[in-house]
Amino acid sequence: MRTSSTDISGKKLEVNIEKDQVQRSNCSHSRGRISVVGIGPGSLEHLTPKARSEIENADVIVGYGTYVKLIQSIIKPGAEVVSGTMGREVERAQIALSKALENYRVVVVSSGDPGVYGMAGIVLEVVETEKANMPVEIVPGVTAATAAASRLGAPLVSDFAVISLSDLLTPWEKIERRLEAAASADFAIVLYNPKSEGRIEPLTRAYEIMLKHMSPNTPAGIVRQAGREGEEVIVTTLKDLLAAEIDMVSTIIVGNSATKVVNGRMVTARGYDLLS
Amino acid sequence: MRTSSTDISGKKLEVNIEKDQVQRSNCSHSRGRISVVGIGPGSLEHLTPKARSEIENADVIVGYGTYVKLIQSIIKPGAEVVSGTMGREVERAQIALSKALENYRVVVVSSGDPGVYGMAGIVLEVVETEKANMPVEIVPGVTAATAAASRLGAPLVSDFAVISLSDLLTPWEKIERRLEAAASADFAIVLYNPKSEGRIEPLTRAYEIMLKHMSPNTPAGIVRQAGREGEEVIVTTLKDLLAAEIDMVSTIIVGNSATKVVNGRMVTARGYDLLS
Repeated sequence: MRTSSTDISGKKLEVNIEKDQVQRSNCSHSRGRISVVGIGPGSLEHLTPKARSEIENADVIVGYGTYVKLIQSIIKPGAEVVSGTMGREVERAQIALSKALENYRVVVVSSGDPGVYGMAGIVLEVVETEKANMPVEIVPGVTAATAAASRLGAPLVSDFAVISLSDLLTPWEKIERRLEAAASADFAIVLYNPKSEGRIEPLTRAYEIMLKHMSPNTPAGIVRQAGREGEEVIVTTLKDLLAAEIDMVSTIIVGNSATKVVNGRMVTARGYDLLS
Repeated sequence: MRTSSTDISGKKLEVNIEKDQVQRSNCSHSRGRISVVGIGPGSLEHLTPKARSEIENADVIVGYGTYVKLIQSIIKPGAEVVSGTMGREVERAQIALSKALENYRVVVVSSGDPGVYGMAGIVLEVVETEKANMPVEIVPGVTAATAAASRLGAPLVSDFAVISLSDLLTPWEKIERRLEAAASADFAIVLYNPKSEGRIEPLTRAYEIMLKHMSPNTPAGIVRQAGREGEEVIVTTLKDLLAAEIDMVSTIIVGNSATKVVNGRMVTARGYDLLS
């Protein structure tokens, strides 16, 4: 099996995972291991000590360039950094395995939580496909949905659904079915990748579907760069959602029928009796 | 307004929020403030530095007793601890506000993320109801859904829905509607409070609804005490879910049609081409 990727400087990296390399690893007491680590919304104050310790002790860091930059200051001097572009997840997972098979401690970084649209799944799949007996630990992080929610108030304090509008990996029909289901059953809804590849159509379609089932006055919020420099937080309504500035790194949260705006923040009422 | 709660020793606490107390606070430059802090799954290694710093600097800590115990070691000596029993959320929020109006730095702790079935909403609502001009910060944490997912593998790496089976605050008909919607639209499903108040009926009904729409062989996982002492992780199938030991602090994750078991762990395939 042969794949390639580019490092942070754009240099081509060749990756070969040889059958005997896998077999050697399975028989020996290797220190090679992979941790798939969630770095949270981006600033170090939301990075858990467990995640930090994994990064600080890594021989090799593998991740999408933007995320690697966020944790640059805590990477061990001399550690190898294999960075790359969005959309090369399989290659990054293969590189991670290849390096771990060379007895390195490898950390694969994802923003937010690695188990939510992150690298956790593909790393486990690649290790299985290669029949490599390699320890893989998933280290959770503060996920974008709750980081964004914390900036908006408390929109997700009752049941909610998380939906990515990217149809790169999921057929659009299935995304529509999920939007219909979530909107019609009064879930608060978190939208990831609202404008993947710069396309506006998926968001416009999601907007139409939500409006079919939900009040146009339902509070909605948009968060860019939650907890990072350049953070932007907008509280608006479902009907005015498309008028707001939204890009591919924005997280959108649309409330449910119990969501109201309280002192400028979204709060989904849970039904407590406040007069008790 | 008058409420009461008990502290960790069982002592009755009287809370009075007087109108002139609120007005004084609105006019003065008080240092009183409230942070609603997510402590993550429980062990300090998953507590973010931001959450830790808020707790360490608090004059008053308010929280459900079980959660307060998890962070006992980092509470400032001399800080007041107002702990209490589950189901007294409104009172805890009122106590927090009352203490902040007395110019204390108050931290309200929730397990996981405070914005997911936690205290974030009710604190914002109480501050609004009392017309108190009190700063409230929501500090996100690693939520139980992703902490549990990390122990199970990567079941939530595609779209998912989060549903609480407790009908204390949400009518059961609405919970059923959400279960139907999530199961029929092929969401992975996270169930919180699977046995609230020790009742088995909600879980049995949820099980029946999921089985109507999903394959009985869909992988399912149960996590108790994720990342804490006494952690238990079970990977099973939807059809065998009810045979597993489940209690009210268990988090259940049922996969979707793309979820498989890989090396004993749940992985929801996202559709990457692994042969590329």
